[in-house]
Amino acid sequence: MTGPAPAARRESTVIIDCHGHYTTVPKTLHEWRRAQLAGENPDPAGPAISDDEVRASIESGQLRQQRERGADLTLFSPIAGQMGHHLGTAADSVLWSRVCNDLIARVEALFPDNFVAVCQLPQSPGAPIDACVEELERCVTELGFVGCNLNPDASGAFWQTPAMTDRSFYPLYEKMCELDVPAMIHVSGSCNDAVHHTGAHYINGDTTVFMQLIQGDLFKDFPDLRLIIPHGGGAVPYHWGRYRGLALDMGREELEDGLLRNVWFDTCVYHQPGIDLLTSVIPVKNVLFGSEMIGAVKGVDPRTGHNFDDTKRYVDGAAFLTDEDRAAIFAGNARRVYPRLDAKLRARGR
Amino acid sequence: MTGPAPAARRESTVIIDCHGHYTTVPKTLHEWRRAQLAGENPDPAGPAISDDEVRASIESGQLRQQRERGADLTLFSPIAGQMGHHLGTAADSVLWSRVCNDLIARVEALFPDNFVAVCQLPQSPGAPIDACVEELERCVTELGFVGCNLNPDASGAFWQTPAMTDRSFYPLYEKMCELDVPAMIHVSGSCNDAVHHTGAHYINGDTTVFMQLIQGDLFKDFPDLRLIIPHGGGAVPYHWGRYRGLALDMGREELEDGLLRNVWFDTCVYHQPGIDLLTSVIPVKNVLFGSEMIGAVKGVDPRTGHNFDDTKRYVDGAAFLTDEDRAAIFAGNARRVYPRLDAKLRARGR
Repeated sequence: MTGPAPAARRESTVIIDCHGHYTTVPKTLHEWRRAQLAGENPDPAGPAISDDEVRASIESGQLRQQRERGADLTLFSPIAGQMGHHLGTAADSVLWSRVCNDLIARVEALFPDNFVAVCQLPQSPGAPIDACVEELERCVTELGFVGCNLNPDASGAFWQTPAMTDRSFYPLYEKMCELDVPAMIHVSGSCNDAVHHTGAHYINGDTTVFMQLIQGDLFKDFPDLRLIIPHGGGAVPYHWGRYRGLALDMGREELEDGLLRNVWFDTCVYHQPGIDLLTSVIPVKNVLFGSEMIGAVKGVDPRTGHNFDDTKRYVDGAAFLTDEDRAAIFAGNARRVYPRLDAKLRARGR
Repeated sequence: MTGPAPAARRESTVIIDCHGHYTTVPKTLHEWRRAQLAGENPDPAGPAISDDEVRASIESGQLRQQRERGADLTLFSPIAGQMGHHLGTAADSVLWSRVCNDLIARVEALFPDNFVAVCQLPQSPGAPIDACVEELERCVTELGFVGCNLNPDASGAFWQTPAMTDRSFYPLYEKMCELDVPAMIHVSGSCNDAVHHTGAHYINGDTTVFMQLIQGDLFKDFPDLRLIIPHGGGAVPYHWGRYRGLALDMGREELEDGLLRNVWFDTCVYHQPGIDLLTSVIPVKNVLFGSEMIGAVKGVDPRTGHNFDDTKRYVDGAAFLTDEDRAAIFAGNARRVYPRLDAKLRARGR
């Protein structure tokens, strides 16, 4: 043991859930969006939501569960399923993103110890990426956000947009590198009756993007770009042999030597065997603790008596992980992938 | 131990690979298809391929590997990626399916101990299912096929066809039940640049269909319908907690009590930890040995020195499986799911 003593390490470890959405947002936000999409031109400043309403929506939901489960801080972003990039116009998307992101900034302002803001981007099928670059810059430089969510299928489960390795995304990647913020790759809702939102589209999105990255050369052009693939990397760790084999068949490097310099997976996998596989197949340095709480699966597993999405238990329960591994998954890796988060925490002595 | 003694069991165990495609088919078949899609009206009887050509294409490929790997028999179907239901007209699809299926029948006729035929179906986006019903009946009753492959996305990775629980599929399901044959759910090629064929579309197809089945009530209407979801069930076993949780949130039964009466997964998962997860999470009775050899991943894993798709090794290596479990995965389950295969084998004293 050459590192700090366990007691010292524990003292400085802030348990970071890298994946939370504001799913408990007051309903007035949904009403505002409905009005926007109906062409009723709601107040461009967004719905009137008081600080007390924000507090109540957080305290009874995410904050309570964060505390109950033993996490300290959540990287918090607007509801992924409501980004709805396939809905409305590009201009609608710009305004909607500002409204949603501003609300996230208010959550962080009210609960700076518990939530750190991550933004949605105003993508829109076929629209240039410029609006996303602008909104990212606004959120990071003016509001102190530490990352963004980037949708690989702005067509809502019809996959009618280019791969994420397409040059049309490059201005955004340039800005991400300049600002030193990562993106979580996260689809939004499915408008496709054949493709369930959280049960198919989310997981498929993760899987599809990983394969796009194997095919492309994105990280040659952006060696410092950092992408988090959520939901445990979709199907990828379970099929790690398939992806290694496909990559090698294509003359690519071993994934551990190539893509995993730039790609991380979260732990949004809702049972112990899944987390055991994830953490045994994927190098620990590439795994970030995440729960997506309160999100896709809200119930309690009758076999364990705990919420399916209480993923901290599974990481705690992965028997072969060392304390150092857990510290990396719960805290260290996130601070490395989100340097602006690390800077915030350091500034507060955490 | 109340069953037969191990020696007796081994004697009667035929190791069945439930998932093989005729990927080594003579090139004249591809040329015929090209001509068909180009409107050149090639001979409707199909390309001239001699028995010697068929023998050579099989002996040097699938048969050699089958023997080297220690399997006995493969459920053999036309190349999945070439079904191409999104290409050409519905009439093209009918003729193409007949040509492909007739070739598969010839493979079985030449190698009856090693290959048993499974058919592709002449699906076509928006076309009625009748042609599929007819081709299934022809293949099963006239040619002795034991199952079929059914494509859940005849639009080629744009997901512009109804869910598999849609009533438009019901005439096919009725015929499958009447003939007592199962379907392997298997997409074809991707014509979507954003979605890689074997690295994304295949796995997404599996995942998407499982979620459709959770949402629907298909097996209430067809309690005897049997579906195999290939590629280890896509992302499903890795995310078993998510699917259990989503099902319970929707007021459905536990998956083990519900869907797994009608759904099986194969073992096309190309590394040991994946097979360990599959066989520990999914009841052994719901797992069928499959390799998809020669298929998606053709290379040798430099870490093991064996082909990635040599899945028999992983099933052999899953330390906690009993001999009885392995006999079920390698043989017994397939004979139960494909009763016409079982009848063929019994008729030959196997």
